[in-house]
Amino acid sequence: MSNKSSIGIGLMGIGVVGGGVARILLEKSKLLEELVGCPVSLEGALVRDIAKPRSFDLPSHLLTTNVEDILNNPNVGIVVEVMGGQEPALDYILKSISQGKHIVTANKEVMARHGPKILGLAREKGVQVLFEASVAGGTPIIAPLLRDLVANEIITIHAIINGTTNYILTKMAQEGMDFDLALKQAQELGYAEADPTNDVEGIDAAYKLAILSTLGFRATVRDTDVFHEGITRLTSRDFRYAEELGYAIKLLAIASKQDGAIQVRVHPAFVPVDVMIAKVDGVLNAVEIQTDLTGRVLFHGPGAGSMPTASAITADLVEIARNLAGNVVPPPPVTFSDDVRVRPIEELNTKYYLRLNVADRPGVFAQIAQALGDLNISIASVIQKEADAVSQAAEIVLMTHRANEASMQNALRVVNELSVVNEIGNLVRVEDWE
Amino acid sequence: MSNKSSIGIGLMGIGVVGGGVARILLEKSKLLEELVGCPVSLEGALVRDIAKPRSFDLPSHLLTTNVEDILNNPNVGIVVEVMGGQEPALDYILKSISQGKHIVTANKEVMARHGPKILGLAREKGVQVLFEASVAGGTPIIAPLLRDLVANEIITIHAIINGTTNYILTKMAQEGMDFDLALKQAQELGYAEADPTNDVEGIDAAYKLAILSTLGFRATVRDTDVFHEGITRLTSRDFRYAEELGYAIKLLAIASKQDGAIQVRVHPAFVPVDVMIAKVDGVLNAVEIQTDLTGRVLFHGPGAGSMPTASAITADLVEIARNLAGNVVPPPPVTFSDDVRVRPIEELNTKYYLRLNVADRPGVFAQIAQALGDLNISIASVIQKEADAVSQAAEIVLMTHRANEASMQNALRVVNELSVVNEIGNLVRVEDWE
Repeated sequence: MSNKSSIGIGLMGIGVVGGGVARILLEKSKLLEELVGCPVSLEGALVRDIAKPRSFDLPSHLLTTNVEDILNNPNVGIVVEVMGGQEPALDYILKSISQGKHIVTANKEVMARHGPKILGLAREKGVQVLFEASVAGGTPIIAPLLRDLVANEIITIHAIINGTTNYILTKMAQEGMDFDLALKQAQELGYAEADPTNDVEGIDAAYKLAILSTLGFRATVRDTDVFHEGITRLTSRDFRYAEELGYAIKLLAIASKQDGAIQVRVHPAFVPVDVMIAKVDGVLNAVEIQTDLTGRVLFHGPGAGSMPTASAITADLVEIARNLAGNVVPPPPVTFSDDVRVRPIEELNTKYYLRLNVADRPGVFAQIAQALGDLNISIASVIQKEADAVSQAAEIVLMTHRANEASMQNALRVVNELSVVNEIGNLVRVEDWE
Repeated sequence: MSNKSSIGIGLMGIGVVGGGVARILLEKSKLLEELVGCPVSLEGALVRDIAKPRSFDLPSHLLTTNVEDILNNPNVGIVVEVMGGQEPALDYILKSISQGKHIVTANKEVMARHGPKILGLAREKGVQVLFEASVAGGTPIIAPLLRDLVANEIITIHAIINGTTNYILTKMAQEGMDFDLALKQAQELGYAEADPTNDVEGIDAAYKLAILSTLGFRATVRDTDVFHEGITRLTSRDFRYAEELGYAIKLLAIASKQDGAIQVRVHPAFVPVDVMIAKVDGVLNAVEIQTDLTGRVLFHGPGAGSMPTASAITADLVEIARNLAGNVVPPPPVTFSDDVRVRPIEELNTKYYLRLNVADRPGVFAQIAQALGDLNISIASVIQKEADAVSQAAEIVLMTHRANEASMQNALRVVNELSVVNEIGNLVRVEDWE
């Protein structure tokens, strides 16, 4: 089947994910040869420190600290980039492509920020760039989106694509834990980093959503296009009210297209408990895609981890290697439109959950309702009113009908200035599966 | 990109699914041309009766009742077979392949029964046969299994791949409905056929499981290898007990591989409520695949319906059309081992739920425990004992530890002969996600 004697792989990075890839290359070499039609051989691995002990040891002659050893190795047909971070990963990817090497990467940051540049150069040089592992780790999502849903128009994407925050929110929901404690547990378990900003502020999810939206809408969506709001303001009270109201709270990455404009946002959201994505717990990921033909399909599985992520990378690697082995020139990747309007968050139209700490005296609710009504926000229901005798304060929780985000933000400012309002507890957007 | 002027499609069958395919071919022709690199044109459609009114009308010059018009049309490069049933579909598929035409089919029955023959001929003739729509309708499963999980060894597959029965079981669980009434509702809604045998006896799911197992284990699994037991014995009492015990009842299609042998079975199963697949309700499908590298991934979505199924067919069609347009010779399909042992159901080792109607008098339980114990079946818990004063009968519900199926069946015979046992209410296998 093949006229190549072997397909050479250059690995950039052998951390958690890279180590997994190396293991698969060595331990499943027979399977890979069978699938590809010729041997797939690891030609070299770029590391920062050769002497550093690793959970999985590679023959030392394969290790190098000099990227040129990979870039200039004519036997390397495919570069697997699993260093993560923006630089030098981007530089190495571009140089590899310039050398005519195909790319498999798990790098969401690079793909979200520089995808168009990378794919443009790849097109020019006639090489493939695949990045299944950059979104939802081991859960197949990019290939199914591009392949299985190819005839579909994507209407919305609802995704849980950050395992760290989903773990934290699950703990808060199921055990009534506070954010700080849940975060600490996640850090102890290695699910969250020492500096958790990228995860808890929704930045990591925004990268991934930019990638998914670009592919789904065939339009360039940059990470900077994605509105993101983190989970740090959520309290155990919010989870208690959500449960009473029949909702789960999830950090959702949401992309939608309407009237030719795209809206992309990452924020905590109330999700009806009976919806499949509301049932996704712990560090797992899920992506639900709603389309014109298929309705809703959901992909659920591990969003990180050494072997799951390495599995996704290997799938990309096998695809490219089979093409190389069979001298197949794959069709060029689809192009992405560059002139699609991205709707700012101010144009969002949704329902809201609002929790307020107010003075416990008559007429307070009327003032709040008035302030909201003045900005065309109508209240669907008032859910809770807990009075605290000592502080003479009460908690009002209300759900609105659909309203405009800009109006809601204006209304919040007005409400916040009311003398009867002590504090705005939280405002959470409500996603109804309508 | 293309050196073909057009890719011609021959459609065999324009019922519910075929009509959807025709609609996509006509209404999304611009998108298809963009994706494939040249126009994709419907060259002809085989129907039984040209005059029959259809929800979607095709230009009458495209309709034919003579299969030769498709087989001998040199412009037809891809035949889409959506007639369903075994014959004449099988005959037409084989003849099409012999003519060098590529095949896209949604026919689970033909692929489950004659897959090896069809794929063998396809290999010989150098054509592609794709059948994404044959399992779980519009939910991507075959391509992700073959592509994204390519480096994985499949350990188990747990699937809900019959929407009719899942609808019925959901009604029974949520509304306490009896089987007969739930079936009647499913029939009224068009989810179940007038003769529901294929669905409710697990035959339809067995076809699909044979296909999934063949692909997952790379070993030929025939529909006749699949043990199947239907849902007709389930009563509302079983659902009540299941709920109390923390389980849902689902008609599961289960494939597993252990010590080189495969076990494939379709039967009602107790599934822990907190497991993702237990939460799949209504007519939807879900397939959960457990692998060595990725752990568990789940695919969830529509298992039938005109446009969802047509979406899956179109994805296959685009894949082949792109290859044709680009003169790409795809790698030959993987071959399937023919000498894998299929373990008969008697070798199953699982936990059981057993419901018995017994005489309400002392010593009864001891006799039952003795009969089970004699066959090495140990009881994990006795859950319910409801006495009925009028009939002097009681109901005993027990859960066993893991036991051998053959022993369990023998034990049931012994138990059934005990004078104190009025009736064996039900025996349901328990799937624990361990």
